[in-house]
Amino acid sequence: MKTFVKQELTLDVCTKMLELANSKAQEIGIKIACTIVDSAANIKVFSRMDGAPLMATDISRKKAVTAVGFGVATGNDWMNFIKEDPILREGVHDIKDYMLLGGGIPILINGELVGAIGVSGAHYTQDETCCHAALSLLK
Amino acid sequence: MKTFVKQELTLDVCTKMLELANSKAQEIGIKIACTIVDSAANIKVFSRMDGAPLMATDISRKKAVTAVGFGVATGNDWMNFIKEDPILREGVHDIKDYMLLGGGIPILINGELVGAIGVSGAHYTQDETCCHAALSLLK
Amino acid sequence: MKTFVKQELTLDVCTKMLELANSKAQEIGIKIACTIVDSAANIKVFSRMDGAPLMATDISRKKAVTAVGFGVATGNDWMNFIKEDPILREGVHDIKDYMLLGGGIPILINGELVGAIGVSGAHYTQDETCCHAALSLLK
Amino acid sequence: MKTFVKQELTLDVCTKMLELANSKAQEIGIKIACTIVDSAANIKVFSRMDGAPLMATDISRKKAVTAVGFGVATGNDWMNFIKEDPILREGVHDIKDYMLLGGGIPILINGELVGAIGVSGAHYTQDETCCHAALSLLK
Repeated sequence: MKTFVKQELTLDVCTKMLELANSKAQEIGIKIACTIVDSAANIKVFSRMDGAPLMATDISRKKAVTAVGFGVATGNDWMNFIKEDPILREGVHDIKDYMLLGGGIPILINGELVGAIGVSGAHYTQDETCCHAALSLLK
Repeated sequence: MKTFVKQELTLDVCTKMLELANSKAQEIGIKIACTIVDSAANIKVFSRMDGAPLMATDISRKKAVTAVGFGVATGNDWMNFIKEDPILREGVHDIKDYMLLGGGIPILINGELVGAIGVSGAHYTQDETCCHAALSLLK
Repeated sequence: MKTFVKQELTLDVCTKMLELANSKAQEIGIKIACTIVDSAANIKVFSRMDGAPLMATDISRKKAVTAVGFGVATGNDWMNFIKEDPILREGVHDIKDYMLLGGGIPILINGELVGAIGVSGAHYTQDETCCHAALSLLK
Repeated sequence: MKTFVKQELTLDVCTKMLELANSKAQEIGIKIACTIVDSAANIKVFSRMDGAPLMATDISRKKAVTAVGFGVATGNDWMNFIKEDPILREGVHDIKDYMLLGGGIPILINGELVGAIGVSGAHYTQDETCCHAALSLLK
């Protein structure tokens, strides 16, 4: 077999998810940067809200890249995987673009990993709230 | 529409193309490095023949990335595109991972850009010969 | 004395080791990226299996580079060396291309360090299983 | 065959070549940086004379890397190879660490490429004079 088939997120759906993340941020009173990447970790959409913390740009990118990198959400999911083994717990930080902070979530469609969303701007639990608002579009 | 469909090269077909490139290199008496990337410019396979020039490793990668980057072969095709306009001709070298030297060729299957092959090791016309040997698999 | 003599891995043996690592991965149901480097940490061969995690590409490279860098396997061997001394334990992560996660193993021939293999794709103990399958070729 | 044999320059001979390059620089009244790399383009010795131009450090490294990269001296030898073909002439500068300026010369022992020397500090013809002084050790 020469090729296999992959689903790729459209710009249209990415734009709508971005809007949902930003609306949720506004609603809860935070200012975020949001990155959505495709299954190859290449960026599809990005925005930084007025007044969002500067470091949020790179953090949101790393969260998205980490979430799509193994198909595992940053924050609790990754922590649960690494916490009992010192080699894992200390070693993951050697991975290029790895980000442990919560707020990076894989995007699945029909069970297939098609990308990820990363949000940064406030406490990571608030960032996650914005991710979930975006992902509600796909339900 | 939430997603669109993409073809991705299998490892199997990439490995066979790599072998064909290396066989051709041996046949014509050169020593090459060869990189094959997928449609997202992520590497699938690589090999460096014994005695290949050290710089061939990075050159082969850049040729593949450039070829898949716009779907245009490095060497003559890119040169024909840029040669009459000084801004294009001088400006392309500012592109990250851009490589003008011939020996990077897009891989198309049923008219869809699915990756690229980059070969480096000798004169770029010889490198191109190795690329064509690899691509003959898809005909 | 103007020079000393070094052994260098052939492309032939590297290709066979790569195939053994990939076969073992298939056998145990994981999808890996595998990098083999020579004694100078320059890459000889690489492949990424269909569906392997994206981050596995760079991780496999770093594991190989770390293993050949001091001739010590990543994972338990490195952890045993650093674990009692906080300066070592925390400081190793400042090393360029350092990777603590297991799955990077030096390649020795007649006691001489000639390169290293790095595998990434699943739990590091599974990655190590693939490395050992590859290294069985040299016994 | 699992391995092939390579000659590697000893530190002893590299140190003596460095001294010869620096002595020649002093004799002709210039201040240089000098880099000697092994056959894998990894640095063996380096020195920067008091008062040498700051940019000479990186230039000397690139000259050595370019000279060992294809086994061709920087300056006239490379220029003669590229000057008639616009793709070559413009494309070589896309190669990582490429340096066209003279003063980078491959080091061969019994016809085998074992490394390179790069000198920078004054006009490239003077830099070359220092390289030749160093290489006289091997005659």
